[in-house]
Amino acid sequence: MKTLRSMGLRHQDGKLLLLDQQLLPREEKWLDIRDPDQMIAAIRALKVRGAPLIGVAAAVALAIHAEGGANARELREVAGALRASRPTAVNLMAAIDRMLAALERDEDLSNAAERIFDEDVELCERMAENGAALIEDGDGILTHCNTGGLATAGIGTALGAIRKAHEKGKRVHVYVDETRPLLQGARLTCWELKKLEIPHTLICDNMAAALMRAGRVRKIFVGADRIAANGDFANKVGTYGVAVLARHHGIAFHPVAPRTTVDLACPTGDDIPIEQRQASEVSGDAAPSGVSAWNPAFDVTPAALVSALVLDSGVYDAVALASGMLRKAA
Amino acid sequence: MKTLRSMGLRHQDGKLLLLDQQLLPREEKWLDIRDPDQMIAAIRALKVRGAPLIGVAAAVALAIHAEGGANARELREVAGALRASRPTAVNLMAAIDRMLAALERDEDLSNAAERIFDEDVELCERMAENGAALIEDGDGILTHCNTGGLATAGIGTALGAIRKAHEKGKRVHVYVDETRPLLQGARLTCWELKKLEIPHTLICDNMAAALMRAGRVRKIFVGADRIAANGDFANKVGTYGVAVLARHHGIAFHPVAPRTTVDLACPTGDDIPIEQRQASEVSGDAAPSGVSAWNPAFDVTPAALVSALVLDSGVYDAVALASGMLRKAA
Repeated sequence: MKTLRSMGLRHQDGKLLLLDQQLLPREEKWLDIRDPDQMIAAIRALKVRGAPLIGVAAAVALAIHAEGGANARELREVAGALRASRPTAVNLMAAIDRMLAALERDEDLSNAAERIFDEDVELCERMAENGAALIEDGDGILTHCNTGGLATAGIGTALGAIRKAHEKGKRVHVYVDETRPLLQGARLTCWELKKLEIPHTLICDNMAAALMRAGRVRKIFVGADRIAANGDFANKVGTYGVAVLARHHGIAFHPVAPRTTVDLACPTGDDIPIEQRQASEVSGDAAPSGVSAWNPAFDVTPAALVSALVLDSGVYDAVALASGMLRKAA
Repeated sequence: MKTLRSMGLRHQDGKLLLLDQQLLPREEKWLDIRDPDQMIAAIRALKVRGAPLIGVAAAVALAIHAEGGANARELREVAGALRASRPTAVNLMAAIDRMLAALERDEDLSNAAERIFDEDVELCERMAENGAALIEDGDGILTHCNTGGLATAGIGTALGAIRKAHEKGKRVHVYVDETRPLLQGARLTCWELKKLEIPHTLICDNMAAALMRAGRVRKIFVGADRIAANGDFANKVGTYGVAVLARHHGIAFHPVAPRTTVDLACPTGDDIPIEQRQASEVSGDAAPSGVSAWNPAFDVTPAALVSALVLDSGVYDAVALASGMLRKAA
């Protein structure tokens, strides 16, 4: 397999490195992923995260396993385990299914993984162009979680669109939801924005409403982990609340995702499986020991709250989504 | 001054102790408050917090200073400093103004502080009765921040109402917003509910929307730090967002407060000063060093989003608030 290089993934000469996203920004440590089990553990522990990136990373891990001499039966077994490592983001399933199809066709899995990587870079570019066109000079933009170079093989989804607008000379100010419980906004999005020199301000998730009421947010860009056929979508928990607040304040709300995030096998958001994670991520060291906590990693936003969905293939408003456009677009 | 005893404040023989609310629940440490400067420092650092309690505590500190022999000029100066230690919760200003009025009338300041303490206990009881009447058997109730025995001299405001309903045998389940950035929900409300043996579940603030969409929240009870004459009110940041979400989901939204929280000198919520605190409370150890953060300690919820305001004197819906009922009630 050729050399691959993104903000959070590096592959060279059969060696796969992942930037440990749980340690950022305090430490930039590259994890040496030697086998699929280590990849599965890294995915489960969110050391590698972001719907597009986990799909890409799992495909690369499977290809390296094939290069190491695993037979078809072993590869199918490993593929199944990788596919099941997290339940909500459909990009993982889509990437593994493409690898399995290549396996059944007796194609080279390294080529297949390279294509998935390169395609994600290309999809990011197209989404970014489509999203950047919605951004105007002077916009205050709220975002949630991390949707940049750390979440994809390319420049990102929602954050990619913001970056593209910035590169085109549009002045933007990004308000970053810290994104509890694991603080991907505070840790990862602020880290990326600092590197990119894009002006930004960190807020607690619960301050977004006051920020909107103060008139400081003109647009909202978020990612997506799975988009149902009707345009409902799952994304990092807290996204749905942001969408309701956006509607209340008359602020444009834009999920941004590649076509690999669309799951036509899910008719509506109610059909998307939502990962529940352990209570300790929420309670941490703060709450009394033994406290009960609810910890869904994602929530579902109905398409009716979407101003326009930004895909690589185009921009689709709520009317287009309701009319079933995704069945043609994705 | 007589012996005073609440969940977070103890006074005996001129010695004032405050339970350090920044260390709870990991450590139950009582701070020995020896002079008004220490009280001001404790208020600013949120070691003592809760709109009613800081008013009571400041009054007691002033009375002890008077017992120590301070003259009227010194007392007026100290009162001014106490009054200015935090800007948003009006109970502090109201309590100090009552102490100053007693001073001008040459009344005993210890008696005045005792009356403020005892009155807060009594107001809590009445609010709790009024609030508990709105709670039905089986209710799932969301609350934000801490509004219980730690926030008042009595059993609390919003949490007092929930406690009263529980004591009357109504089965309730409390969902506790962790309440970033200082986690008063996770640390303090869970600690109180555990002691009271009231079933509860901790959530991140950004999960409240998904919880409402899942149908698990039937009512919302929150406190208030200052209520304007038109019924708009300031409370811990995040409250406004909860109110918008409640409206979207058709869930009853109830602020609960004593009459000492009403400020008729503020015509509307726009007139309430909002305390901005340091960025480091938000960024903590997570975000890249030097990150810019926005940290308003409070936000303002317009009266139009209030289902009914619960005061000690009664329950007032949005129509009553809009018609100026608070000018008669408070």
